[in-house]
Amino acid sequence: MAIDFQQDILAPVATDFTEMDKLINEGINSKVALVMAVSKHVVEAGGKRMRPIMCLLAARACGLADMQQAQKLAAIIEMLHTATLVHDDVVDESGLRRGKPTANATWNNQTAVLVGDFLISRAFDLLVDLNSMTLLKDFSTGTCEIAEGEVLQLQAQHQPDTSEATYLDIIHGKTSRLFELATEGAAILAGQEQYRLPLRQFAGHFGNAFQIIDDILDYTSNAETLGKNIGDDLMEGKPTLPLISALQLTQGSQHDIIRRSIATGGVSELNQVIDIVQNSGALDYCRQRAHEETHLALNALEQLPFSQYRESLKQLAQMALHRIQ
Amino acid sequence: MAIDFQQDILAPVATDFTEMDKLINEGINSKVALVMAVSKHVVEAGGKRMRPIMCLLAARACGLADMQQAQKLAAIIEMLHTATLVHDDVVDESGLRRGKPTANATWNNQTAVLVGDFLISRAFDLLVDLNSMTLLKDFSTGTCEIAEGEVLQLQAQHQPDTSEATYLDIIHGKTSRLFELATEGAAILAGQEQYRLPLRQFAGHFGNAFQIIDDILDYTSNAETLGKNIGDDLMEGKPTLPLISALQLTQGSQHDIIRRSIATGGVSELNQVIDIVQNSGALDYCRQRAHEETHLALNALEQLPFSQYRESLKQLAQMALHRIQ
Repeated sequence: MAIDFQQDILAPVATDFTEMDKLINEGINSKVALVMAVSKHVVEAGGKRMRPIMCLLAARACGLADMQQAQKLAAIIEMLHTATLVHDDVVDESGLRRGKPTANATWNNQTAVLVGDFLISRAFDLLVDLNSMTLLKDFSTGTCEIAEGEVLQLQAQHQPDTSEATYLDIIHGKTSRLFELATEGAAILAGQEQYRLPLRQFAGHFGNAFQIIDDILDYTSNAETLGKNIGDDLMEGKPTLPLISALQLTQGSQHDIIRRSIATGGVSELNQVIDIVQNSGALDYCRQRAHEETHLALNALEQLPFSQYRESLKQLAQMALHRIQ
Repeated sequence: MAIDFQQDILAPVATDFTEMDKLINEGINSKVALVMAVSKHVVEAGGKRMRPIMCLLAARACGLADMQQAQKLAAIIEMLHTATLVHDDVVDESGLRRGKPTANATWNNQTAVLVGDFLISRAFDLLVDLNSMTLLKDFSTGTCEIAEGEVLQLQAQHQPDTSEATYLDIIHGKTSRLFELATEGAAILAGQEQYRLPLRQFAGHFGNAFQIIDDILDYTSNAETLGKNIGDDLMEGKPTLPLISALQLTQGSQHDIIRRSIATGGVSELNQVIDIVQNSGALDYCRQRAHEETHLALNALEQLPFSQYRESLKQLAQMALHRIQ
């Protein structure tokens, strides 16, 4: 039976979600009108709020008594996510995100950089109010690793020799690490030390699967389903898993085309690259890796007691996998 | 007798300064080579390290026993300062800072934005290690206000109606707030609650004076002494105090030229604007305001007991004034 996001994943934490949304709007309050306007724009352009929902589900799965704390933490997670998106759009010179104009396109790069800085600072400000040194240390270390992952991605741009291990380091930083903060943070709030590692493992592996799936879709999907065009990653010279895997599975001229395309970010051979990625077995390997990561994510959750919230977390991971089925 | 920076201000905390410098180099350590390279570049391009020196002097003036803590805090202050410079250079599209190529010019905007994010996160990470909730709250609130000040400056760009009150809000955020964190933070570390407000007042007023002086020099100095060209602020349409004051003191065509120049950021009338600013009494008013702010800064320090460190803080404020004498 198909998993329904609203019913199976959001509904169990719907009231928490509403409160969380209010806290985000309070959080971006500022005496500077431009800060407010830009923050509102980027927060409202947000998607399904998957990361804060994971945080809320994890908190309930840990039996946290004071859910107001989890609502605050979930709001912080979404603000940090929004800040990285705003800076990513400057970095990628993106004009659209999910079909809406980005902050850098609507205002300018300057405003986007500074409002991103504001959102990072405000997220930390709200985090301090949660009054937990353990949580603060986890988040301050984690946000360093997120920034490092983003720079590692830049460093690997146009590098055909990027290994799968480096690719995993990149996606751990740019995607999985925030997933980990969202769920492990909930265990810290709940004082459930024994659930920290399982939730971190779940989120880390789910994050990896989620990003691998996204990278597969860049070679199989179209603007309608993904919100970006086929081959966008290639155009930026990003050596994602489909290309790394295609290099492993090809020789001769096919191998050369992939190498050259990563190095130049060339779209001149885009159709050939897509063809090679799709027919070399590279996508099959990527799908297998996505399944493996999802399997590890689901396994880790078994260390938590049964609850509807734990099941919702599982369904979230399964739903992501359905995108490539 | 002329104040000597090395002898009168740096010497009393020279050993602390050396340790602080080591801590910065440890702080920017990263497993990602590009993060290290860029951080090293921007940290080494730093100036006199005035902000961390203020922190060290304030800590000694408060009688802090464990100066290792102050050395850490001073390193954090310099890292936060460096992060804002890196982002400012992206925002201003600057190619040079203090005669050296900026990070965005040496690498690119992308790298500069992300390494700036890393430095902010790492600064918070080191701050958490100081294990003081009071300090964390002060810094998380303060960094929000710094970002707001920077956005307020963008918002005021090309706005001839910007008031002196708004100008003061801008410079408090972009300059004085970090000065306050550096000195009030030292009082927090020392557990000297009664010195928090005086040190904050000193730093706030000194920061205002420092920025007003910088803004005066933009209309009187040249590239050699200031490291930037005369009229740079005008080119960016920044309504700094010399222009705000000139608008107060002029009428008719002179008034119109200033308004128009702020609105367009035009350099076509640069010589006339410089002439009006220099001859309308605007610079005299700015100098008077710089003296007033310095006076308030020095007064606030009287609430601290006499020590060579307190005297060095006073001399630092007096030395800044000498730049416009």
